[in-house]
Amino acid sequence: MYREKIKVLDCTIRDGGLINNHRFTDEFVREAYRALSQSGIDYMEMGYRSSRELCPPKDFGSWKYCDDEKIREITDGIESNLKLSIMVDAHRVKEQQFAPADESPIDMVRVATYVKDMDKAIEMAKKCHDLGYETTVNIMAISKEIEPDLVESLDQLARCPVDVVYVVDSFGALYCEQIEYLVKLYREHLPEDKEIGVHCHNNQQLAFGNTIEGIIHNANYLDGSLYGIGRGPGNCPLELLVGFLKNPKFKLSPVLKVIEEQMLPMQKEIEWGYIIPYAITGILNEHPRAAIAVRKTANKDNYAEFYEETRDAEV
Amino acid sequence: MYREKIKVLDCTIRDGGLINNHRFTDEFVREAYRALSQSGIDYMEMGYRSSRELCPPKDFGSWKYCDDEKIREITDGIESNLKLSIMVDAHRVKEQQFAPADESPIDMVRVATYVKDMDKAIEMAKKCHDLGYETTVNIMAISKEIEPDLVESLDQLARCPVDVVYVVDSFGALYCEQIEYLVKLYREHLPEDKEIGVHCHNNQQLAFGNTIEGIIHNANYLDGSLYGIGRGPGNCPLELLVGFLKNPKFKLSPVLKVIEEQMLPMQKEIEWGYIIPYAITGILNEHPRAAIAVRKTANKDNYAEFYEETRDAEV
Repeated sequence: MYREKIKVLDCTIRDGGLINNHRFTDEFVREAYRALSQSGIDYMEMGYRSSRELCPPKDFGSWKYCDDEKIREITDGIESNLKLSIMVDAHRVKEQQFAPADESPIDMVRVATYVKDMDKAIEMAKKCHDLGYETTVNIMAISKEIEPDLVESLDQLARCPVDVVYVVDSFGALYCEQIEYLVKLYREHLPEDKEIGVHCHNNQQLAFGNTIEGIIHNANYLDGSLYGIGRGPGNCPLELLVGFLKNPKFKLSPVLKVIEEQMLPMQKEIEWGYIIPYAITGILNEHPRAAIAVRKTANKDNYAEFYEETRDAEV
Repeated sequence: MYREKIKVLDCTIRDGGLINNHRFTDEFVREAYRALSQSGIDYMEMGYRSSRELCPPKDFGSWKYCDDEKIREITDGIESNLKLSIMVDAHRVKEQQFAPADESPIDMVRVATYVKDMDKAIEMAKKCHDLGYETTVNIMAISKEIEPDLVESLDQLARCPVDVVYVVDSFGALYCEQIEYLVKLYREHLPEDKEIGVHCHNNQQLAFGNTIEGIIHNANYLDGSLYGIGRGPGNCPLELLVGFLKNPKFKLSPVLKVIEEQMLPMQKEIEWGYIIPYAITGILNEHPRAAIAVRKTANKDNYAEFYEETRDAEV
């Protein structure tokens, strides 16, 4: 699948950080940065830019804040054309500070938002745009949104300076027809100079398939992560996405190498992947919080019971 | 996705048997049979009907032969509307014997074949049809077939009494556009009274997504297995397929229950699932034999090296 406009973003550190409160070692982040640089990936997302007042540093590692200085420590001395992004939650905004883009190692700010917080998201995206950053707005939990509300958001986004608008399947609930529908809906409401992105969760083993579906319908910003790491079921495995895209600028070997050296040992420490309770919350189109909770109990593998309880708790 | 004609076939014992030389315990097969019966699945595939001359019993368990008497031992005393199928390899035919269908516990015989062995497959399917069995022909390794040869096979199948013709993605190499293309090609060349089936392998985490793609294009026979068990990456996880199909005849709880009770302990003994060397053979559209081989060595997790060797060994 060769299309020059396609950009691949690795969200290993950012989405993976949701499992371990953003406490990756500097060595790991450096190795990931090195491998992604060698593989020709377009963007690497380093984490969140969170308020230290709302999110106190005793509870989180460095990648909850992504200070410019910290990022420079990681990238120092490694040859790279990789662009860097960070994420900001529109609904958890306090006093995040951003240097002007030309004084920062960060190239892109991605604003994650629910439809209800779209005004905040747009304000944040404008602020970052005016500072010189590339910007995206990532509309989360889209499988639960009512269409007129979503359309209103898209129409607002059409008039603001954001570069990319993402379909985010937060609950891993969407099937390919729904991805097709949403990407087409975005395309219909957004002007041609704005790109569409897809960020899929792997609850039902559909993250890669749905990402391909997005590509078919002209989404050009594609998120993946190393070995699919991410909260619960994780994300679209970057290695599969690179294997699919035949663009010669991408190299698969460095991705495979960092998986064998870094991700295999990590998976012995922290859990992600195909795990039935997350598949169930995906099937039921629910937030994974019940699955996260049950995985911490002795009932973590009582799948039938979990399904019945979660299904009957709906409404 | 409600469509009355859709039939779901569980291939746990048959495809899973490729990992352990068909040596499942009677207790396990009974528990799977009980769960599938309760869940309303349409067919359960018990294994192969192989020649004892070509495949000596010292090397294999009972499910390599699927004797009628053995099957009766398993099903005895369990209330069920589940139909039973067995598979026969067209290219390994010797003196397989079949009782007339009305004297056998088996309802359907599925003939697995490469395009080159289509004449043998059709002869076998006819023989079974004449004995009163439902029949399918499963065209394997279809991602390597040349289209005129495949079309010739489809035209032959159009004129023979087989009930269902399957797209089999043996190498787990196909993407959704290719599934769409093949199912449409089958539909074009087969008369309306023949159904189309899809059997997908999960090398690239696409087995479920590709099965949905098959459904969208009117494939009505769908293969899955419990927790996705099968050789290497395995198959479409039955639990995801049942979660997707909204037909109220299917119950998810019995499937989840047998996964927690039987499949979780089994996965500690035998390996299947998302394993990078199988992803690589899928990406390269190759038989998984190199992945099977490397997983038995100390280099089993040297992914980059395996990729480069396998890629460069192509042609």
